[in-house]
Amino acid sequence: MRVLAVLGRGLVPPDTPVLRADDPGALGDGLFETLHVRRGRPWLLSAHLERLTVAADRTGLPLPALDRLAELVTTACDAWPADREGALRLVCTAGPDPDGPPTAYALVTSVGEAAQRARRDGVRVVTLALPVEATARPAAPWLLPGVKSLSYAVSTASLRWAHRRGADDALWVSADGYALEAPTANLVWLLDGVLYTVPAEDTGILPGTTVAHLCAHAGSLGLATAERLVRPGELVTADGVWLTSSVRGLVRVREIDGTPLADTGRTADLQRLLGHPVGDGSDPATS
Amino acid sequence: MRVLAVLGRGLVPPDTPVLRADDPGALGDGLFETLHVRRGRPWLLSAHLERLTVAADRTGLPLPALDRLAELVTTACDAWPADREGALRLVCTAGPDPDGPPTAYALVTSVGEAAQRARRDGVRVVTLALPVEATARPAAPWLLPGVKSLSYAVSTASLRWAHRRGADDALWVSADGYALEAPTANLVWLLDGVLYTVPAEDTGILPGTTVAHLCAHAGSLGLATAERLVRPGELVTADGVWLTSSVRGLVRVREIDGTPLADTGRTADLQRLLGHPVGDGSDPATS
Repeated sequence: MRVLAVLGRGLVPPDTPVLRADDPGALGDGLFETLHVRRGRPWLLSAHLERLTVAADRTGLPLPALDRLAELVTTACDAWPADREGALRLVCTAGPDPDGPPTAYALVTSVGEAAQRARRDGVRVVTLALPVEATARPAAPWLLPGVKSLSYAVSTASLRWAHRRGADDALWVSADGYALEAPTANLVWLLDGVLYTVPAEDTGILPGTTVAHLCAHAGSLGLATAERLVRPGELVTADGVWLTSSVRGLVRVREIDGTPLADTGRTADLQRLLGHPVGDGSDPATS
Repeated sequence: MRVLAVLGRGLVPPDTPVLRADDPGALGDGLFETLHVRRGRPWLLSAHLERLTVAADRTGLPLPALDRLAELVTTACDAWPADREGALRLVCTAGPDPDGPPTAYALVTSVGEAAQRARRDGVRVVTLALPVEATARPAAPWLLPGVKSLSYAVSTASLRWAHRRGADDALWVSADGYALEAPTANLVWLLDGVLYTVPAEDTGILPGTTVAHLCAHAGSLGLATAERLVRPGELVTADGVWLTSSVRGLVRVREIDGTPLADTGRTADLQRLLGHPVGDGSDPATS
């Protein structure tokens, strides 16, 4: 099942082509956000629109007014069954005509079985080299650090590479040996009651909306939060390691490069903070 | 003026949207080639299809049969005026349906005034850091070294950055200080009668079709050819420095980071080897 809404046109059949051959988006030049749809509503819409605005400022992309984008998202969500979770991709490009309107559309699709399985069973991860030093990218803004651009081929290729090696996901490791992020998720780990994340501003990784929500609410589980760099070897001895992303939510990393990781038993608690369907079978979104 | 041909449909109005929202190409996952169109024919078509095939093998992209792609390109070129040079972009993606056909289209557009000016006057270039060591990328195939993927945002952002600094083009320099390539062109330099290029296999830069043609024919100008790594400081003292690409052809680099470069006076000779319209006003393509 799919639902598609296009700015200025409203709902259109989901098979409708949306990008012209001369749209900059057809060469990966544009921005996107992925949102979780629950009870027919987009989750963390404001945070996603805020991140989109920051990225548009950095890349010089002319965005439609945010209330028009919010309306576009709502139009798509209203056509999605309220009892079914969805994945919404909001795409914005400058549009094909320099003096014409920007392109924007919202596509909602089903959340696949792989996501459900990952929530329940966790994921096995392989590390992939990203041969850049951990803190080098922010000084090279032309590499689009922290920007969720439509040029997602390296993320897709990294996931394919991980799958070919029999893993579920990948973890990019910098030239100087730090674990940075997964191709479509942030890294979170627990050590001595502190929930750690990788600093986004210092490294140019994507500042995650899900991980921000998680950290803002971790106190209710008695957990402190902090940011720091981490090596894969440290993750193996942490009390727990997870990946967070908008649609899948939080999933436990149960193996890195074949080494099994500890299970704190706190995965379901952390998943409940996000309100996604939980791997243990309960669903906060419908309960 | 624009001409658009879509695989399986032939010529369509150039404003026709070609990518569905769920086409992998809408997230930069796919390949493209850019060809020069002269006398109504695509230049170096076989070399471009060969590079596309290598990239498809590396990325696991299912390509349509090459004779169908060649026919698609011919269909677009046949509709383009024979007395006008054109830029043809051939795009291939896996298509939106896992069991459905791949997406392929060919778009021909006019060659802009900036290209004509660059052929005549040369270009001023600024160096931009690509904080990866020169020979690190081939060992990280998930970064798609040597692949012309649709994820072109970093190239576009680099050119925008160069333009904002008042330059015409950019030159990426590795973490260990080697000049690699321009965002959409290869680097060529002349020293003591040898025409040098950067080794593509060792560095993961795009193996240029234009530079390959240039080197294959440089002997007719009494020039030897060789590949090696080079630092920007060496380029400044070379006998001549150029950028090569399919549409613009060969253009002289007349300034790097504000430092003027020598003019060998051989630019027009080298341009004639390519058969593009030449910066001195003569046009081998129509003579």
